[in-house]
Amino acid sequence: MAKIPEASRRRLTLLAALLASYKGERLTSIQMQRMAGIDRALIRKDISLAGYKGGVSNGYKAAELLAAIREALNLPLPGQKRFCCIAGLGKLGAALMQCGIFDETPFKIVAGFDSRVNRTEVLSADFPLYPAAKMEAVIPESKIEFAILAVEDDQAQLMADRLAKSGVKGIVNFTGQVLEVPEGVEVENVSPLLALNNIVAAL
Amino acid sequence: MAKIPEASRRRLTLLAALLASYKGERLTSIQMQRMAGIDRALIRKDISLAGYKGGVSNGYKAAELLAAIREALNLPLPGQKRFCCIAGLGKLGAALMQCGIFDETPFKIVAGFDSRVNRTEVLSADFPLYPAAKMEAVIPESKIEFAILAVEDDQAQLMADRLAKSGVKGIVNFTGQVLEVPEGVEVENVSPLLALNNIVAAL
Repeated sequence: MAKIPEASRRRLTLLAALLASYKGERLTSIQMQRMAGIDRALIRKDISLAGYKGGVSNGYKAAELLAAIREALNLPLPGQKRFCCIAGLGKLGAALMQCGIFDETPFKIVAGFDSRVNRTEVLSADFPLYPAAKMEAVIPESKIEFAILAVEDDQAQLMADRLAKSGVKGIVNFTGQVLEVPEGVEVENVSPLLALNNIVAAL
Repeated sequence: MAKIPEASRRRLTLLAALLASYKGERLTSIQMQRMAGIDRALIRKDISLAGYKGGVSNGYKAAELLAAIREALNLPLPGQKRFCCIAGLGKLGAALMQCGIFDETPFKIVAGFDSRVNRTEVLSADFPLYPAAKMEAVIPESKIEFAILAVEDDQAQLMADRLAKSGVKGIVNFTGQVLEVPEGVEVENVSPLLALNNIVAAL
């Protein structure tokens, strides 16, 4: 199947999140439009790009549609585990580490890193915490694919370089710094500041 | 000027973030492509949509380009203050509240809300914390325009409904719940789970 364009992929991951928590058996594109804020013509187009043909006049079967989107986008399935780390264990990194963001998801945090040894010694977690100097060794050994980046802005690019060199394929960027990464590494920017600017620009 | 399409707007807010931290005087679309991971033809198109005409062969003047993007997208300027609140003061909400995410930005958190009174009593912040019951009164009184939503997933929709009714125009959604909001309210989804799924889908 041809690669699905980015805008469609993003809408489909959002629909997958909606479907994963949907309690009913069926739902229509009109319902999805209301629930996800996406125009229903686009929803139908995206679902067809995902290769799903099961829509009928009384709606899509939620579980089937979710399975089809996950397959089309190669999303991990419940029960699978893809390994992540957190880089930067300040207030935000420590909270992300401790608040169970990936409980009951196919992602699992298996390591934390901070360049300040006192942070890795003082904090406690269900997984090992390492000084940042160990990053290049631990990431490949622990089969870590993704990183949550929560360092200070002025360290963000340096840390992103090291994560990329260590083999990380994707970075969830909580910092306000726009990251320069090599080809093959994906960045998702989730900084609250960027999010607010996107909101203001959309108003 | 006609409304700039969403995809262009998002790229432009990212370029604005890049330009805001850029130290040099000029930069080319090739440099921006490398730094922001956006194709340079798209960058040139977006800049022209923003109404900026100043590009020459040796690059754009960074400060002028930033000012033009901010004006085109109506982004707040440094020195302005747009008021925000945090709804949900669990581990993540408390960390977001305390880690200075909006320091030196045009956004300012002026209130925190939690439905558990013990959270609002135990935590301390530079701004008042209120039981969620006060939301509908405090938000208009304090001229709060935006909310950071960091409640548990199962409370997210209920809280979003109340934020929208209180007059909030935008929600930065840290929860895994897809939010249904009335027209005129914008949502930016920054859940780490959704971000990781977007990364996996892009690989």
